[in-house]
Amino acid sequence: MSLQRLNKFVRCSENYKLCRYVKSQLEFSPFLRLSVKSKNFSTGQNMSSNQKVLNIDNMNPNVRIMEYAVRGPLLIRATEIENELKKGVEKPFKEVLKANIGDCHAMGQKPITFIRQVLALVSRPELLDDDQFPEDVKERARTILDGCRGGSVGSYTDSPGIEIIRKHVAQYIERRDGIPSDYLNVLLCAGASDGIKAILRLLVADVDGKQPGVLIPIPQYPLYSATLAEFNVKQVGYFLDENKNWGLDVNELERSITEARKHCNPRAIVVINPGNPTGQVLTKENVVDVIKFAYKEKLFLLADEVYQDNVYAEGSKFYSFKKVLTELGSPYSEMELASFMSCSKGYMGECGLRGGYTEVINLDPEVKAMLLKSVSAMLCPTVLGQTVMDCVVNPPRPGEPSYESFQEEKNGILKSLSERAKLVADTFNSIPGMSCNPVQGAMYAFPQIKLPEKAIKEAKNQGIEPNAFYAFQLLENTGICIVPGSGFGQVEGTYHFRTTILPQPDKLKSMLDNFKDFHLKFLEQWK
Amino acid sequence: MSLQRLNKFVRCSENYKLCRYVKSQLEFSPFLRLSVKSKNFSTGQNMSSNQKVLNIDNMNPNVRIMEYAVRGPLLIRATEIENELKKGVEKPFKEVLKANIGDCHAMGQKPITFIRQVLALVSRPELLDDDQFPEDVKERARTILDGCRGGSVGSYTDSPGIEIIRKHVAQYIERRDGIPSDYLNVLLCAGASDGIKAILRLLVADVDGKQPGVLIPIPQYPLYSATLAEFNVKQVGYFLDENKNWGLDVNELERSITEARKHCNPRAIVVINPGNPTGQVLTKENVVDVIKFAYKEKLFLLADEVYQDNVYAEGSKFYSFKKVLTELGSPYSEMELASFMSCSKGYMGECGLRGGYTEVINLDPEVKAMLLKSVSAMLCPTVLGQTVMDCVVNPPRPGEPSYESFQEEKNGILKSLSERAKLVADTFNSIPGMSCNPVQGAMYAFPQIKLPEKAIKEAKNQGIEPNAFYAFQLLENTGICIVPGSGFGQVEGTYHFRTTILPQPDKLKSMLDNFKDFHLKFLEQWK
Repeated sequence: MSLQRLNKFVRCSENYKLCRYVKSQLEFSPFLRLSVKSKNFSTGQNMSSNQKVLNIDNMNPNVRIMEYAVRGPLLIRATEIENELKKGVEKPFKEVLKANIGDCHAMGQKPITFIRQVLALVSRPELLDDDQFPEDVKERARTILDGCRGGSVGSYTDSPGIEIIRKHVAQYIERRDGIPSDYLNVLLCAGASDGIKAILRLLVADVDGKQPGVLIPIPQYPLYSATLAEFNVKQVGYFLDENKNWGLDVNELERSITEARKHCNPRAIVVINPGNPTGQVLTKENVVDVIKFAYKEKLFLLADEVYQDNVYAEGSKFYSFKKVLTELGSPYSEMELASFMSCSKGYMGECGLRGGYTEVINLDPEVKAMLLKSVSAMLCPTVLGQTVMDCVVNPPRPGEPSYESFQEEKNGILKSLSERAKLVADTFNSIPGMSCNPVQGAMYAFPQIKLPEKAIKEAKNQGIEPNAFYAFQLLENTGICIVPGSGFGQVEGTYHFRTTILPQPDKLKSMLDNFKDFHLKFLEQWK
Repeated sequence: MSLQRLNKFVRCSENYKLCRYVKSQLEFSPFLRLSVKSKNFSTGQNMSSNQKVLNIDNMNPNVRIMEYAVRGPLLIRATEIENELKKGVEKPFKEVLKANIGDCHAMGQKPITFIRQVLALVSRPELLDDDQFPEDVKERARTILDGCRGGSVGSYTDSPGIEIIRKHVAQYIERRDGIPSDYLNVLLCAGASDGIKAILRLLVADVDGKQPGVLIPIPQYPLYSATLAEFNVKQVGYFLDENKNWGLDVNELERSITEARKHCNPRAIVVINPGNPTGQVLTKENVVDVIKFAYKEKLFLLADEVYQDNVYAEGSKFYSFKKVLTELGSPYSEMELASFMSCSKGYMGECGLRGGYTEVINLDPEVKAMLLKSVSAMLCPTVLGQTVMDCVVNPPRPGEPSYESFQEEKNGILKSLSERAKLVADTFNSIPGMSCNPVQGAMYAFPQIKLPEKAIKEAKNQGIEPNAFYAFQLLENTGICIVPGSGFGQVEGTYHFRTTILPQPDKLKSMLDNFKDFHLKFLEQWK
């Protein structure tokens, strides 16, 4: 791509591209109107003064205000660009690179053979007689089918999942932590999001006339802000310290809750470890601090531990909240905790199959019964998602026919992710005006960008967040789709973006090259 | 089973069994406390005056009050009895028969080969080279994989589902109704429950200070009462007329809404057609009446049409709300409608795989954008559930290798269901003190039972609904698990139960024999 052409595109993008974008997204206009908050973009009330029974003004206001940046306007535009490319529209790039979401297989990661073989067998039990499948795969499939009513994955399971899989999860947790786990405390769910919502739902209650609040990290994963908005629960942000590698500081927790108590009733705290979007891995001391803080403040603990297998940095280690809390002894070991795990992350990356689990401990028995009742109204999580979870918690053991190849695939993926984590952070740190903490774990980098004043001003003129302006420009000029930091929350006046580290190594390298190229030109353009 | 032994069991059950049941379900006590509303069963406030951060008194009150009869205390007890049987506890029966839920495969129905073959191939694309799979199966699998990012079902899809599957759904609807369908109006979901909740969620808004209300049939499917309770939306019941074959009468709709307007703002009407639990199939005229009523009263239409393939009675035919509304012309053809379909019912009965779709028409574009946004926070419905939906809407065509066997399997299941529908209604009608409308469609019979005064009195003494008392006795004495009519709603002073027609023919016959046997003895016992 020539400099001249790039400059032309950058110039074009300033107003025209964004306007065209908005126009093309008429269907999504309220979405944009609310997230971009621009007079220019507002479609006004005219559209809703129609004869419809249900309109924007009389619909659920909590749904109206919720935002989900990871699948927001940038992704919509990215998908549109993909369609334009298919139709032959000329662009300064050949393909859109969706670095906006932790979608491993979409980025070329291969599924784990063992998992897919088990899935094929439970779906089509006639294949159990086929010699091409190893015996351990067949054994896993038979065990799951035995746990299904009528021997079919097409039957409803118990609402918290198939008993034998819940037992396998409990055994997995025991092996991980060296601490007993009761399978009756394990609820399978359709991805961690489903489990997280089920727990947050329990907390929705005004107590003494005060709105409930939940502490979440800033930056956070937008599922939390979206769910709290939907449930009309106050989002109480505590800032992670970018200067201390996105560390979690108890003083900041104290500040946050003291502030929050003036206008709401904080009832729970969410910790994401390893961090999303920030990639830090909490030290054991950090986990202890949070537990003691939550105890003192009588907060229910939600530990989002879906990246527990994704720890890369030397010296970093995953400590589960359950392990630390239990080892602290009484009274901490009696605290209420929900921990979440998913099939979508780790080395398996089976996002589309919607598997996950929640482990709850120390719940009031009446509350637990209510939790079980509330999940029962959705019948059961998908049995094939449950199947994937079973493969993850009950993988091939040494001596079993699939053991070697399973280990090879798993370790290969994790090793490559570890290399990519380092490459991404190093590259961003080599770019003028960018700084990036090390990606100790999870699947994302969250670099800070210093934006030129002129660009900030132009973005504000257009009524768009400066980092969203940057992200749109990046998308239009390189095809790289990232998520602006404002979608996760950031300290006022700072600008960030989240990118996954998931493109396969060759693609990742060329993505980073193009990114750097764009960034330098952007700085030049807006200096 | 000897009469002596049965009598002993019936006697034992009166108090002791129920008490033992309650004791054994300590974990579920609040559930029972709320659904049974008995002083005896109440566990009081002592349990919740503990040190827990989250307890029954400060948790979400909407979750606390919601009930889901289909998976309520009877099912919990049934599962416990299964475990007792496994442990060798002696019972007057050999197995528990779960006729409480429309769970086809659990009752011995075989999966459709075509569906399971496609599932195996998309899960394990290496099998695409295997000669044992017919070409049409491979073609379907390839098309779906082409629609997945990175060619893997492990990738997230667009939140409303894979584009090509949405297009196939739209084509299916067009073939069904002879009316155009836009795939952009189709949202795939994780079973119909997921889709229904997504639409009901939009309606949650106080307008002019009035709580929103939704009209639902009584008897109804408990997903509706549970969801409305969770969302704090007023349930506005309209009674179906048992004397007119569970017909839907506009006068009753008028009565219901007039009454409701005194204390809430009715915003939508739910119609379940074919009916669950009542099994009626609406005539075209009936559908017209509902549409005109909804237009006049400015109600959003929700058409629960998951049993559209399950129509058995001669002269009965399924008319979709969309077809009737469109053919009525303006202004009715511009009304807002959401229609729901599922993979869990019909001939496929793939409950565990969680597939379904919603078609919305005439939505305000801003509301539609909000709907799309709100589903995006849950990322995407399971891709394998989407795959099943694709097989249902895009089945083998004449001339394709799977066509004959697919048709044979499908028609065989539907024919057998049709025979069972008749057998069940005829048998219940032959039992003294029972009357049952014909099962024109769906998968359930909902007979009325005349309970002896003495039994009603005893139930009330125990603080339990008389039809729940009957159902518990039936369960303890025969192993048959049904759902009391009170879980669905019924005219005050009448008693019903819902049973599925799903046990395989031989089992169904012996179930009905045992049922009759029990009923006669129950009448004798309590005369």
